[in-house]
Amino acid sequence: MISVEEALTRILAEIQPLNQTQVPLAEALGLVLAEDVIAKENIPPFDNSAMDGFALLSKDSRPRNGNPPRLRVTGGIAAGYVTDQAVEEGCAMRIMTGAPVPPGADTVIQVELTRNEGPESEWVEILQEVAPGNNIRPAGEDMHKGQTALQRGIEIGPWEIGILATLGYANVLVIRRPRVAILSTGDEIVDVGEQLQPGKIRNSNGYLLEAAVRRAGAEAHRLGVARDSVASLREKLNEAITYDLVLTSGGVSVGDFDYVKDVMQEQGQMNFWRINMRPGKPVAFGRIGAVPLLGLPGNPVSSAVTFELFGLPLIRKMLGHQRLVKPQIDVVVAEDIRERAMRRHYIRANVAWQNGLFVAHTTGNQGSHIMTSLLNANALLIVPEGGVILNAGDTAKAMMLDWPEVES
Amino acid sequence: MISVEEALTRILAEIQPLNQTQVPLAEALGLVLAEDVIAKENIPPFDNSAMDGFALLSKDSRPRNGNPPRLRVTGGIAAGYVTDQAVEEGCAMRIMTGAPVPPGADTVIQVELTRNEGPESEWVEILQEVAPGNNIRPAGEDMHKGQTALQRGIEIGPWEIGILATLGYANVLVIRRPRVAILSTGDEIVDVGEQLQPGKIRNSNGYLLEAAVRRAGAEAHRLGVARDSVASLREKLNEAITYDLVLTSGGVSVGDFDYVKDVMQEQGQMNFWRINMRPGKPVAFGRIGAVPLLGLPGNPVSSAVTFELFGLPLIRKMLGHQRLVKPQIDVVVAEDIRERAMRRHYIRANVAWQNGLFVAHTTGNQGSHIMTSLLNANALLIVPEGGVILNAGDTAKAMMLDWPEVES
Repeated sequence: MISVEEALTRILAEIQPLNQTQVPLAEALGLVLAEDVIAKENIPPFDNSAMDGFALLSKDSRPRNGNPPRLRVTGGIAAGYVTDQAVEEGCAMRIMTGAPVPPGADTVIQVELTRNEGPESEWVEILQEVAPGNNIRPAGEDMHKGQTALQRGIEIGPWEIGILATLGYANVLVIRRPRVAILSTGDEIVDVGEQLQPGKIRNSNGYLLEAAVRRAGAEAHRLGVARDSVASLREKLNEAITYDLVLTSGGVSVGDFDYVKDVMQEQGQMNFWRINMRPGKPVAFGRIGAVPLLGLPGNPVSSAVTFELFGLPLIRKMLGHQRLVKPQIDVVVAEDIRERAMRRHYIRANVAWQNGLFVAHTTGNQGSHIMTSLLNANALLIVPEGGVILNAGDTAKAMMLDWPEVES
Repeated sequence: MISVEEALTRILAEIQPLNQTQVPLAEALGLVLAEDVIAKENIPPFDNSAMDGFALLSKDSRPRNGNPPRLRVTGGIAAGYVTDQAVEEGCAMRIMTGAPVPPGADTVIQVELTRNEGPESEWVEILQEVAPGNNIRPAGEDMHKGQTALQRGIEIGPWEIGILATLGYANVLVIRRPRVAILSTGDEIVDVGEQLQPGKIRNSNGYLLEAAVRRAGAEAHRLGVARDSVASLREKLNEAITYDLVLTSGGVSVGDFDYVKDVMQEQGQMNFWRINMRPGKPVAFGRIGAVPLLGLPGNPVSSAVTFELFGLPLIRKMLGHQRLVKPQIDVVVAEDIRERAMRRHYIRANVAWQNGLFVAHTTGNQGSHIMTSLLNANALLIVPEGGVILNAGDTAKAMMLDWPEVES
């Protein structure tokens, strides 16, 4: 049995980011940028007005004998248009937000600080003196031509998409999304829509893992259930090796029908198959043909927890992410935890932010078949190896799966 | 001008969760459950073994004269199968994890605590005394028949999907996903693939909002750009009102070409169009026909920030979520903030968890056209109305958009 850390290290050592591909901008959301994005123009591309108002010479805004200066309005510039006409001394031009500042003008005064006779007015009174550059957004103030605007390796979120659009990237070079095959194993498993016969249970792991894989940013493909025979498993795995990763559940323990390990050893290689943790000791990792296979336990809670610990970082590495694992923080334990597990124990817990502390409550019966213990859990509270006992008020580490609840 | 709180209250008062719809289980991820989910069977459905081992009578595990008792193996039960054959005194049956406990047996001993001659052995020695119920997972221990397993109103994540699958919900009643039309406005806007001509900028808001709407869980449909004329806007809005929500950017300020407000007043109703905040004063909300319209500002940063403050809660309410807004926490400000804005100021900031405190650093130039200030921002630091100054070391509220960085 190896430690959780060694298992993760061994998995990640075998996994590389997938290849790069060009995708239309709108499809890049959530993927990792595979190129440095250089600004090919200044952004904004030209000096433009931050306000609706008037473009003028700043010196013309000075009061004359205590009265607001009155300037002749010689035209107007709307956003999206340019003018060759210069603003001359004693004159002003109407200007809209985002419109290019016309030649001659060195400042803009917002419409609220002026007085005139409406949209057709031939004159405008300037009610406040304004400095040069007022309300002017200079070309290149946000990004200058040649600047690296986004660095390869970042995750593309909505705001990065906005920047890519501004810079004219209709297509983006990204790391492609892994295609993940999900295979449940066991003669006891029936599909979700089927009537339960005696001795049978439904395929919860297939659906749970499909959703978890999608949430991790990969494509998930449920291949159904392999029966408890080497022939059935070989057939399903033959289909599975056309994917980038195979996730199985069940079949990796010490039982007579735990064939996943056997077929891996026969048709690929086994890296490890037991981890010193609970829930989830029987986790296998290796290859089937050339394709990585992560064999998760059959118990639904074990499957869910080991996916977070090993499946998620594996998929994130394929996606090219820099941060692979969920954050760990110090939490205060709200109740005694006296299970004396010799293996490291990951306890489903709900962590809330209360009075300046992260406080963790466990979510009930921690049996690996108790799916309801997953409900309301946003964290895995970590009880170290060796039969450690935690008392209420102790500090422990928790892996945060979701943002903690915040008192409002 | 109304406050941020009043604007949000007015928006949410006009919005109801959308109607319910039945979707296949795998498509329910991220949606809100619209029915209480009742367990129609016990889960697990039958007493079953937690281990690979032997089913026996617990009294037969007692050592005899200091020696391990030797029991006759009368058969085996694999997961997925049942047997009518009872385990009798002095006998044991081989049992696999998940297999139903056979009649007669009241306990299971794991294979590691037994000795025999391998899979075909006709006897087994029991190396440890075991109590009744050992390694038996009783029927209904996780969920009992008739129990409400999931309550309507929760968000369906991967773990809820696992529970739904276990309970046989091949289809699920959910609140349907809103279809959101996204419309950019302005004669200055060209599409992302086009060459920039003088005076033009690219349609960043359309792409940014499309991604943000998707991330919020809704379907996003970019309708392109309406030109600065009432006719063009009417035409585009005519298309937009077949959606559940219209998001526009630009055209809601005080300029001569800000027609969105006008068309709303003409063809629907205007609820408000100015909010006492920065960035993003010109935010309009109302209806076009019967369809809610949220008019966001044209500046990209204003558009991004006001989407988080108003668009996201609006969409989450349509989706039926209970928690609509992002969490606010107390943070320590790492640097002086002396902009003396009279409006409430939402400063793009990066919040990290350092030495037991949430610490906020601003992300540079806070102009509403500086898109690069969005990069690395995971929070909006809130500077209250009225020209408040924050000094380094002060505590302030921040709205967290993402999980803060954690020191490792």
